[in-house]
Amino acid sequence: MKEVIEYIDSNKGKYIEELKEFLRIPSISTLPENNKDMQRAAQFVADKLKDAGLNRVEIFQTEGHPLVYGEWLGSPGKPTVLIYGHYDVQPVDPIELWSSPPFEPTIVGDNIFARGATDDKGQVYMHIKSVESFFKTKGSLPLNVKFIIEGEEEIGSNNLSIFIKNNVELLKSDAVLISDTALFAPGVPTITYGLRGLCYMEVEVTGPSRDLHSGTFGGGVPNPINVLAKMISQLVDKEGRIKIDGFYDDVLKLSKKERENFKALKFSEKQWAKEIGLKHLTGEKGYTTLERIWARPTLDCNGILGGFTGQGAKTVIPSKATAKISMRLVPHQDPNKIEKLFTKYIKKIAPKEVSVKVTSLHGGYPVITPLEDKATIAGAKAMQLAFGKKTVFMREGGSIPIVVEFANRLKASPVLMGLGLNTENLHSPNEHFNLNHFQLGIKSSAYFMDEYSMNASPQKK
Amino acid sequence: MKEVIEYIDSNKGKYIEELKEFLRIPSISTLPENNKDMQRAAQFVADKLKDAGLNRVEIFQTEGHPLVYGEWLGSPGKPTVLIYGHYDVQPVDPIELWSSPPFEPTIVGDNIFARGATDDKGQVYMHIKSVESFFKTKGSLPLNVKFIIEGEEEIGSNNLSIFIKNNVELLKSDAVLISDTALFAPGVPTITYGLRGLCYMEVEVTGPSRDLHSGTFGGGVPNPINVLAKMISQLVDKEGRIKIDGFYDDVLKLSKKERENFKALKFSEKQWAKEIGLKHLTGEKGYTTLERIWARPTLDCNGILGGFTGQGAKTVIPSKATAKISMRLVPHQDPNKIEKLFTKYIKKIAPKEVSVKVTSLHGGYPVITPLEDKATIAGAKAMQLAFGKKTVFMREGGSIPIVVEFANRLKASPVLMGLGLNTENLHSPNEHFNLNHFQLGIKSSAYFMDEYSMNASPQKK
Repeated sequence: MKEVIEYIDSNKGKYIEELKEFLRIPSISTLPENNKDMQRAAQFVADKLKDAGLNRVEIFQTEGHPLVYGEWLGSPGKPTVLIYGHYDVQPVDPIELWSSPPFEPTIVGDNIFARGATDDKGQVYMHIKSVESFFKTKGSLPLNVKFIIEGEEEIGSNNLSIFIKNNVELLKSDAVLISDTALFAPGVPTITYGLRGLCYMEVEVTGPSRDLHSGTFGGGVPNPINVLAKMISQLVDKEGRIKIDGFYDDVLKLSKKERENFKALKFSEKQWAKEIGLKHLTGEKGYTTLERIWARPTLDCNGILGGFTGQGAKTVIPSKATAKISMRLVPHQDPNKIEKLFTKYIKKIAPKEVSVKVTSLHGGYPVITPLEDKATIAGAKAMQLAFGKKTVFMREGGSIPIVVEFANRLKASPVLMGLGLNTENLHSPNEHFNLNHFQLGIKSSAYFMDEYSMNASPQKK
Repeated sequence: MKEVIEYIDSNKGKYIEELKEFLRIPSISTLPENNKDMQRAAQFVADKLKDAGLNRVEIFQTEGHPLVYGEWLGSPGKPTVLIYGHYDVQPVDPIELWSSPPFEPTIVGDNIFARGATDDKGQVYMHIKSVESFFKTKGSLPLNVKFIIEGEEEIGSNNLSIFIKNNVELLKSDAVLISDTALFAPGVPTITYGLRGLCYMEVEVTGPSRDLHSGTFGGGVPNPINVLAKMISQLVDKEGRIKIDGFYDDVLKLSKKERENFKALKFSEKQWAKEIGLKHLTGEKGYTTLERIWARPTLDCNGILGGFTGQGAKTVIPSKATAKISMRLVPHQDPNKIEKLFTKYIKKIAPKEVSVKVTSLHGGYPVITPLEDKATIAGAKAMQLAFGKKTVFMREGGSIPIVVEFANRLKASPVLMGLGLNTENLHSPNEHFNLNHFQLGIKSSAYFMDEYSMNASPQKK
């Protein structure tokens, strides 16, 4: 790998100039006026994949923005890695808060400022350059590589979902390498190996058939707001445990190893609380904050509405009250099963004086790649070699639905090798990307190919 | 009284024609374009009071609509009754739902249809005609009479409140006779002797200092909606009793007599529930529905708001959640004291992870006239004589703030001798007033003057 790494080191300046070119294209997926820029950005990615040495590169048009596909399958008997990323970016408003124009990449210190720098153009570009470094030095890759780079990540990845479903054979791979998450902290090599799922429900309580005057009727009729509040209070117990029958049945317990890993991160709960304006944290008893937000299921009301909510006083007993209630799920909870358990429990605790309607609004599977998975091991080893320090393992409390699609449809192991930082203003003005991390990311990607080619075999057909 | 009653009977047609004239004036207090009509309506009342035989009639201009005052104090040594009512009416929208034009009084069967027919022009006019009947037959009244008829009842009675405060001597009286409520049922003579008060609060719970993503933070931070729901669930126990410390300390217990009276009304809970779309009623254990809504304090959420309440799903943990919570009070609860007890209890049950702000939005005293009060007895006797059947005693679950002002500032006993019906579409299209009740109301008013002049003495100065 010496040659490859030296090549990467000696081309640092060139990579940055090329990245700037990519960042100058205002590929905002949500704005129709940028549709031509979307085509330009896709073409840019395709050209660079070809230049890097891939022997098949194709732009697939979709109902929305194009998908860029590339492959080099010249290592028979070796595993295949699918690299996923996106070339689309968020809008730039409020434009007046940017210190430099969002599509004129500007370097200040170690950071390059531009919309899309960290999310996700800079991170996509790392992998293109790691592939290039192999071809330029070795003339080949140590394993088989496929790329799928989409233009609709910021608007829901709908067309990629359809594409995956219809092109399982084309995308077939052993691991999916994704750089669209964050390092645990600056300079700390990080593998994210688990994501939570989601079960998002709506509960509507109806009492009287019309709004009533609280003077004339108050005390004699069920009030849907009071009833709903009572029901919500029965969802989680004093110790932060969810009371829905059967809710924890399929929960994968945190292993001793994982708890040690999390503990070793020396996460400051105090600092975290301070940043969000809290003096005291809460959560499920017996777990640390990181365990709670990464690896334990939870239940939150995301919205509630009923009765009079304007200024001042109106003496009404409303007919209806509604709450949006979502549960973050962990492996191996099934959102469809949880939806049923939630509905059953709500019906059980609803008093007979009201009628209750329960609706499912959204759901998503959790995902986890075992720490013993060969792709995870290769990813961790690769980052360790690149950074020169031990890789940490984290999970992420949110969901990335497309990762689940890859994992479930392709039966491939996701490796989340994010090089961003949560402080890099993704989705906000002055988005930036640390150029040291960019360089370390190219090396990590190259080391991953090398490591994975050695430790893994292709899936049995 | 034979002569007086015969006079009333023989003038039925004339009274209706005069009432029609009153109802033709579109005295909508809330619409600026009707300001001249307000003056016309006030002048109409003043003219009719003069025609009826009062010797001092005056229109007091206010910051808003005028007040009409009238008096005849020719019965020294006899008690004084103040008759209150209002000449203003509600707007007429939605106009297309009216079967006849709202300001062209139309008689169909026993009912006269027009905006203001039952609320409150028809009921005000009864008292003007009862006074007239005495002067036309006896040349004098059996006691002293004052009238105060306002033009702002439908918009809050603010200027009358100020006027009462500044004119206690002018309005001084032993009883205040008010016909602006309803009979318990058609043809059933009814005295309303108690009104509930109100303490209307707002509770705002703040968790994190900004809205958070429920994926990244869910499980590790307090959710203000969940916390607020839990707090609301702790306000009322399983038996419908309010858990605020000290809440019941000043509650006047229902007497055996009152409970018997209510029971004798043969109120159909089943029918009542059906009309508001309920299969099951709830409320404080150990009390009937009438007791609950008339004579027991209660607590209702009137509004709740927090987080995302639009269509679909948004995975947010909001910074804040707010509820409007009001308590209906009964004699002798003090809204200021209850406000303090509520605030103290809320602070007590609030978990330390959140901050809670409690605000008072509105308050009003409950009021009760003892069944033994001479004005109440006279009112009940009067209606019994007019209707030819026993008067029933009810309370009302809502508040009529001006009644409290009269009771507290003038130390006068309120007598609520309402001749309306709750089914007469007050505030809605096709408002009407039963003309038999109109005629019975004139007689009830006349009998009241006679009865009260005999059983009561004026207040000690």
